Amino acid sequence: MSESRIVTAAVIVIGNEILSGRTKDTNLNYLATGLTEIGIRLMEGRFIPDIEEVIVATVNELRAKHDYIFTTGGIGPTHDDITAASIAKAFGVPLIKHPRAAKLLLDHYGPENLTEARMRMAHTPEGAELIDNPVSVAPGIKIGNVHVLAGVPRICQAMFDGLKAELKGGAKMLSRTVSGYVGEGAIAKDLEALQNRYPMLEIGSYPFFRAGKFGASFVIRGTEKDRIDAAAVELHGIIRNLGAEPIEGEPAA
Amino acid sequence: MSESRIVTAAVIVIGNEILSGRTKDTNLNYLATGLTEIGIRLMEGRFIPDIEEVIVATVNELRAKHDYIFTTGGIGPTHDDITAASIAKAFGVPLIKHPRAAKLLLDHYGPENLTEARMRMAHTPEGAELIDNPVSVAPGIKIGNVHVLAGVPRICQAMFDGLKAELKGGAKMLSRTVSGYVGEGAIAKDLEALQNRYPMLEIGSYPFFRAGKFGASFVIRGTEKDRIDAAAVELHGIIRNLGAEPIEGEPAA
Repeated sequence: MSESRIVTAAVIVIGNEILSGRTKDTNLNYLATGLTEIGIRLMEGRFIPDIEEVIVATVNELRAKHDYIFTTGGIGPTHDDITAASIAKAFGVPLIKHPRAAKLLLDHYGPENLTEARMRMAHTPEGAELIDNPVSVAPGIKIGNVHVLAGVPRICQAMFDGLKAELKGGAKMLSRTVSGYVGEGAIAKDLEALQNRYPMLEIGSYPFFRAGKFGASFVIRGTEKDRIDAAAVELHGIIRNLGAEPIEGEPAA
Repeated sequence: MSESRIVTAAVIVIGNEILSGRTKDTNLNYLATGLTEIGIRLMEGRFIPDIEEVIVATVNELRAKHDYIFTTGGIGPTHDDITAASIAKAFGVPLIKHPRAAKLLLDHYGPENLTEARMRMAHTPEGAELIDNPVSVAPGIKIGNVHVLAGVPRICQAMFDGLKAELKGGAKMLSRTVSGYVGEGAIAKDLEALQNRYPMLEIGSYPFFRAGKFGASFVIRGTEKDRIDAAAVELHGIIRNLGAEPIEGEPAA
């Protein structure tokens, strides 16, 4: 993958508990932030239930569209943990007991505590590699471009951190944020003209209400630092023309 | 919709800032919780960028599959707010200036401050109804089964709260949580047998680590309270057999 190619990813959050509202997902944001840092663009997130055919269809749709897929959730020892088996089905390969995963679990639990259920966590699609779990041993799974991570945030995040070095990003999305106590509706026209002068950049406007005043943060994103900086200089001027002071970054809380 | 029919929904979270990691979404969980309360099952969540063709394709795919669709984000006054126009395109209708929305904005901003950009927030797909915005006036949009809400959490949530009374739920998903300081790997076999004895229920297992001890919460979900309670009684016995004390609900923090 060359530096200039755009490398894309999708995240699939698997779990009934997220869709029922019982559990708040925090993994998507963690992965989104980490991927952005290494030049991989998260293009979509899917939140789906623990239903085999949905997992199979979603994984197969997305792995054909993106460079990297990350799933979270459903790789524990209980009957509702069906992600590994579903991924095997998506790839059309059998689910096998992975010898190194089995050894890891045996060393961790000892023969007397390694129940059949715990041994389920050694099951991987045939041909898969393991993803290191520095928190609780039971590994994640990598097969093709699909990375199967745990749902528990601490474990999911540790697995992803360990993987990061081997993920290959492309053109890195750089960003610069300029804020100001100006109404979005007051600046919108100039902002659109600025966007039109810099079609290679993506200029987003995010309103806030702080200390009793309305304002907005303007995020300028793109792969060329000199263009971003040039647009930011113009944006400073636009904000000053509206009688406000441009603030680099987010306003103080 | 009869009480026993399963009523489903999907949520579409629209915004580059979510996918870049800049902004943490909190709306999905709010909507998920609220929908569950009124007997509507959230079947999927989609996180997508501010790209017209992606919004159009996602809305059209999902509105054909589910009873209710909710989108969040992209309905402000700036050039990157393209949700209303994209929804119009999805429905194949023109984007019009909605007279009542225009009146609301005029009353709120006054003629001198109602910029052309702010007037964009009165644009709706032809045939759409307005969703009340008690926070900042600019309304959401309802067209067909699609409900277009703001992205700012306070506004999104207020719009949804106002809508709730008119949403028609079906068979309500009830749930009962029983927790215990037992390892998932120790209880998994009995839990699976319990699930097999109650195929009409959905039994999820969610591990936790609290006060230096591993445990798990078991969530029993279904539409029939008597079955849930019967399964919960059995689950109490299973936890006691493993030498632990069953706890109703989540364990104390």
